Amino acid sequence: MAYELHYWPTIQGRGEFVRLALEAAGADYVDVARGTHDGEGGLMGRLRDADDPRPPFAPPFLVADGMTIGQTAAILLFLGPRLGLAPTSEVDRLWAHQLQLTVTDFVVEIHDTHHPLGPSFFYEDQEPEAKRRAEDFRRTRMPKFLGYFERVHARNPAPGGFMVGAELSYVDLSMFQLVSGLGYAFPKAMRRLEPTIPGLIGLHDRVANLPRIAAYLESDRRIPFSVEGIFRHYPDLDG
Amino acid sequence: MAYELHYWPTIQGRGEFVRLALEAAGADYVDVARGTHDGEGGLMGRLRDADDPRPPFAPPFLVADGMTIGQTAAILLFLGPRLGLAPTSEVDRLWAHQLQLTVTDFVVEIHDTHHPLGPSFFYEDQEPEAKRRAEDFRRTRMPKFLGYFERVHARNPAPGGFMVGAELSYVDLSMFQLVSGLGYAFPKAMRRLEPTIPGLIGLHDRVANLPRIAAYLESDRRIPFSVEGIFRHYPDLDG
Repeated sequence: MAYELHYWPTIQGRGEFVRLALEAAGADYVDVARGTHDGEGGLMGRLRDADDPRPPFAPPFLVADGMTIGQTAAILLFLGPRLGLAPTSEVDRLWAHQLQLTVTDFVVEIHDTHHPLGPSFFYEDQEPEAKRRAEDFRRTRMPKFLGYFERVHARNPAPGGFMVGAELSYVDLSMFQLVSGLGYAFPKAMRRLEPTIPGLIGLHDRVANLPRIAAYLESDRRIPFSVEGIFRHYPDLDG
Repeated sequence: MAYELHYWPTIQGRGEFVRLALEAAGADYVDVARGTHDGEGGLMGRLRDADDPRPPFAPPFLVADGMTIGQTAAILLFLGPRLGLAPTSEVDRLWAHQLQLTVTDFVVEIHDTHHPLGPSFFYEDQEPEAKRRAEDFRRTRMPKFLGYFERVHARNPAPGGFMVGAELSYVDLSMFQLVSGLGYAFPKAMRRLEPTIPGLIGLHDRVANLPRIAAYLESDRRIPFSVEGIFRHYPDLDG
């Protein structure tokens, strides 16, 4: 039975970390809100479903085997072994999940560069605050997170150049997405940082060239980056 | 062998969600940075340990069975079954973890009420921004998250009044901590919201009266709330 992915139909957002895993594995899945004409309406209906004993807090959520699973990192924890995108040992599975949770933390901070006052205000209502937060993000937080992931990549004792163990995992796909998204949102800052993260840049390029990922990126299933998602290119916030 | 918890020695912070689980289970553990005279120094040393192949990004982290495990929710995912504080079925274990990840999201937003411009600036350098973010937090985000958890509590089909299944789990302990912390940080807003979350308030009170938790709260192992941690009482941010 096909996996059902439920996410906002017009942005990559957090759903993209799940889409990349489904695509890399060639999994049978339906991107539900994109395929139905009520799009966001259907998604909101599910979120408000008063009968679900395990209601998700927010998209993305996955429906599989009669279960509804929310939270990006939890979805990947569940999908990883089924899609052949998780390490086999328990220790490394927990380690991959721990890295994914640090991706989650980073994604919040990336989002907060354009929404420092929170999700209730438009970007246009918090531009000076966004500028101040983004400047600090580029100077301290972006190098800190990327430097951490670069260190993890360099310390992986297994061959193959992956983040965890000797095989591709969902963590590698998430690194691809972070490098792509930051390159779109903060091109100047990324150009300056790139020489310090050769391992991540190499990994990004190898993931982009995996046959299934390359085909996905060419297809219209890959929603383009825009100023609606997590990674937004506002020239005022780069530098 | 005793569990080693590594966390900032002077605040409850994210470490408290782990401490509560260890205390509720009567587990043998050492709160390492609080017991050593170099406190934060030792903690920073471990974070910078260049030999660790699985380095944590930030505290808290747990050392157990030769593994170092970072990320609060991952620590609880690991500890839950060992401490008898997780459901037994796989479906409910994933559900408990999913709820804990939503606690993590809520904790970020609670923290950001006093740090909307990020962790690099002092509160004193972002007071007007904090006021604006906190007002929206009290009006929209706090009712949204608490309302969600109240709904989850109400929909749990099992008897006992717990969040997941019919037994105490780490999710219940986290609900206790959220209700306590929000009551400290936002007493006025909490007083207004309390009538809408009777399930969570009742759960908070029952957890506070569990013999081990009651003894812990009376002990000096429980660090008092202060204006240093996640939950901070700044009268300007309440209302």
